[in-house]
Amino acid sequence: MNNRIQIFDTTLRDGEQVPGCQLNREEKIEVAKELEKLGVDIIEAGFPISSPGDFASVKAIAEVITEATVCGLTRARKEDIDAAAEALKPARKPRIHTGIGASDVHIKHKFNSTREKIIEQAIWAVEYAKSYVEDVEFFAEDAGRADLPFLAQLTQAVIKAGATVVNLPDTTGYLLPHQMHHRISYLFEHVDNIHQATISMHNHNDLGLATANTIAGIQAGARQVEVTINGIGERAGNTSLEEVAMILNVHKDLGFTTGINPKHLFPISNLVSNLMGMPVQANKAVVGANAFAHSSGIHQDGFLKHAQNYEIMNPEDVGVPSSAILLTSRSGRAALRHRLQLLGFELEKPELDKLYTRFLLMADERKMIHDEDLKELVG
Amino acid sequence: MNNRIQIFDTTLRDGEQVPGCQLNREEKIEVAKELEKLGVDIIEAGFPISSPGDFASVKAIAEVITEATVCGLTRARKEDIDAAAEALKPARKPRIHTGIGASDVHIKHKFNSTREKIIEQAIWAVEYAKSYVEDVEFFAEDAGRADLPFLAQLTQAVIKAGATVVNLPDTTGYLLPHQMHHRISYLFEHVDNIHQATISMHNHNDLGLATANTIAGIQAGARQVEVTINGIGERAGNTSLEEVAMILNVHKDLGFTTGINPKHLFPISNLVSNLMGMPVQANKAVVGANAFAHSSGIHQDGFLKHAQNYEIMNPEDVGVPSSAILLTSRSGRAALRHRLQLLGFELEKPELDKLYTRFLLMADERKMIHDEDLKELVG
Repeated sequence: MNNRIQIFDTTLRDGEQVPGCQLNREEKIEVAKELEKLGVDIIEAGFPISSPGDFASVKAIAEVITEATVCGLTRARKEDIDAAAEALKPARKPRIHTGIGASDVHIKHKFNSTREKIIEQAIWAVEYAKSYVEDVEFFAEDAGRADLPFLAQLTQAVIKAGATVVNLPDTTGYLLPHQMHHRISYLFEHVDNIHQATISMHNHNDLGLATANTIAGIQAGARQVEVTINGIGERAGNTSLEEVAMILNVHKDLGFTTGINPKHLFPISNLVSNLMGMPVQANKAVVGANAFAHSSGIHQDGFLKHAQNYEIMNPEDVGVPSSAILLTSRSGRAALRHRLQLLGFELEKPELDKLYTRFLLMADERKMIHDEDLKELVG
Repeated sequence: MNNRIQIFDTTLRDGEQVPGCQLNREEKIEVAKELEKLGVDIIEAGFPISSPGDFASVKAIAEVITEATVCGLTRARKEDIDAAAEALKPARKPRIHTGIGASDVHIKHKFNSTREKIIEQAIWAVEYAKSYVEDVEFFAEDAGRADLPFLAQLTQAVIKAGATVVNLPDTTGYLLPHQMHHRISYLFEHVDNIHQATISMHNHNDLGLATANTIAGIQAGARQVEVTINGIGERAGNTSLEEVAMILNVHKDLGFTTGINPKHLFPISNLVSNLMGMPVQANKAVVGANAFAHSSGIHQDGFLKHAQNYEIMNPEDVGVPSSAILLTSRSGRAALRHRLQLLGFELEKPELDKLYTRFLLMADERKMIHDEDLKELVG
């Protein structure tokens, strides 16, 4: 089995549809170009039928992207697929992403339909999209809660109809990693033609498990992952591109590769955060402001002795300038001495001990100790 | 085996030592009281030896907390344990949390020691802490990267020395969930006296897997989890209390219970975020501003038809007033009609279609559509 994981970025579709995250056309083109530089394989550029602005943006992105596949989202409807095909015309590698609800709660309460009719509509949509483009991805919405034998039947049917990728979203962010592994394994055991298509993960983070579920899906056979920069997306967001990319990078023991150049991760995280006005919390994995900062005395001491004591990645690997050491009342003597050395002060042990006591009192009062405070302390 | 999971909150220790997150004594007491109301079992109140302010805060918290265990952190050193014992004197249920590095990289590069000496020091520290309090937790720092047979030997030794809890931190946030499950299962198979103590998870989020690793640890036999509000903590933070609590709550099929009252989750998330000046990103699971917001047309339509289509938790369950519907260019007719109805406008289909076209143009331009914009559109 092929172990190259396809990175499908949906920052400009699932991410951009979040309240307050809308970008204009020029901004979307800028993000798309940076995504291509980062090395993503597929850029989901938008949902063309949803508004004239979105249609125009998908078309504009299709015009400028040269290496990556450009993808447009549709419902399983003629007018949606027509609009996507039209918007994707300029693309060198176009993909239509169509689909419909697969769980009983979606089939009954959203589509007021039946399992049989859903399969018919799914086959029709894939075949109709195939009349426009070769590369057609089918999404089985709410696959995470769908009846498994029915999901197998649906997967088999859309692959037979020509789907090149079958995407099995955990739309509500419900599953646990061992459940995801079990479900994808089940499909690999029960869908005869499954090796004719790529199986894709698209997980939401409602319970904080999107990344873990995506990795579990890969371990069970999925070879495409749908992700966003900074994990933005509906509600608690999608799977974070940067987390999945760095897990596969750090855990070479898993044996998977991607086309991502991690050095672009931190810069593109900042770009997307700034353009969308969506701050990334300091304690966000890989790209948060504190992701490589060490503050407690125990950690600072260990870190100064040997960076590998507390870091499994180098900040430089993901494009962050260098590990930051910050001083607070939790900082120990080793960190204080190190910072003072950087400022040009060399202190002997008794001197340092005396200074450390005064440092702690100052830190209890001022919370963060900056270089100016240290100079005040010494001089 | 007991299926009640002990919730050990370390917001005031591992969380508070983060750059810029320092709280004063009154703020710490306020957070501690809210943690007790939330239903946590153990409050790690600080690291008494680290500064006079921290010592005083641990003591003050020990004085006001009546139900929860109050815990203080120490290294495996006499002066640390003496300070913790002194600070915890007023506690009704005191616990000393002591420990030392367990991985070879920590043993060699941080302690310049050997495995044999580390075990001796660990036994000594547990026995010395036991001379002060009955409840002694031992942490094996960097257990996630420690040699497994050595970790089993160390665990067995500290339980024999009297440790009531053995905490096995993934200090660098390195492990994958299946690896965590394997490691904890190994200890349950190879440590004869393991059922005389509680095994604890303390996971960091460097790869975005802290929550998944914590759940994997529980599934393998751990019965205590060390967590923080909003997942704050060193670097990319600790395991989020709210994520673990809601996973166990939503997945009753796992068969575990906690003492957490989820209705306090959102209020205490806001309290900690505000006091520490640490914003929670909008797409944070369970407590982010968007965690229950629906913006895309497909989602809004489905959500309005049946909330269960897109939500596995009720916002009210975790103390959020109600699911928010926000309008953007991705919003569909169903969401527009719903919002207009709330504003008192009832539109027939042709009227609505016409308004929807104008709504999309306005949304492409203004990004977020507020009630005032809608009134302008209609009138």
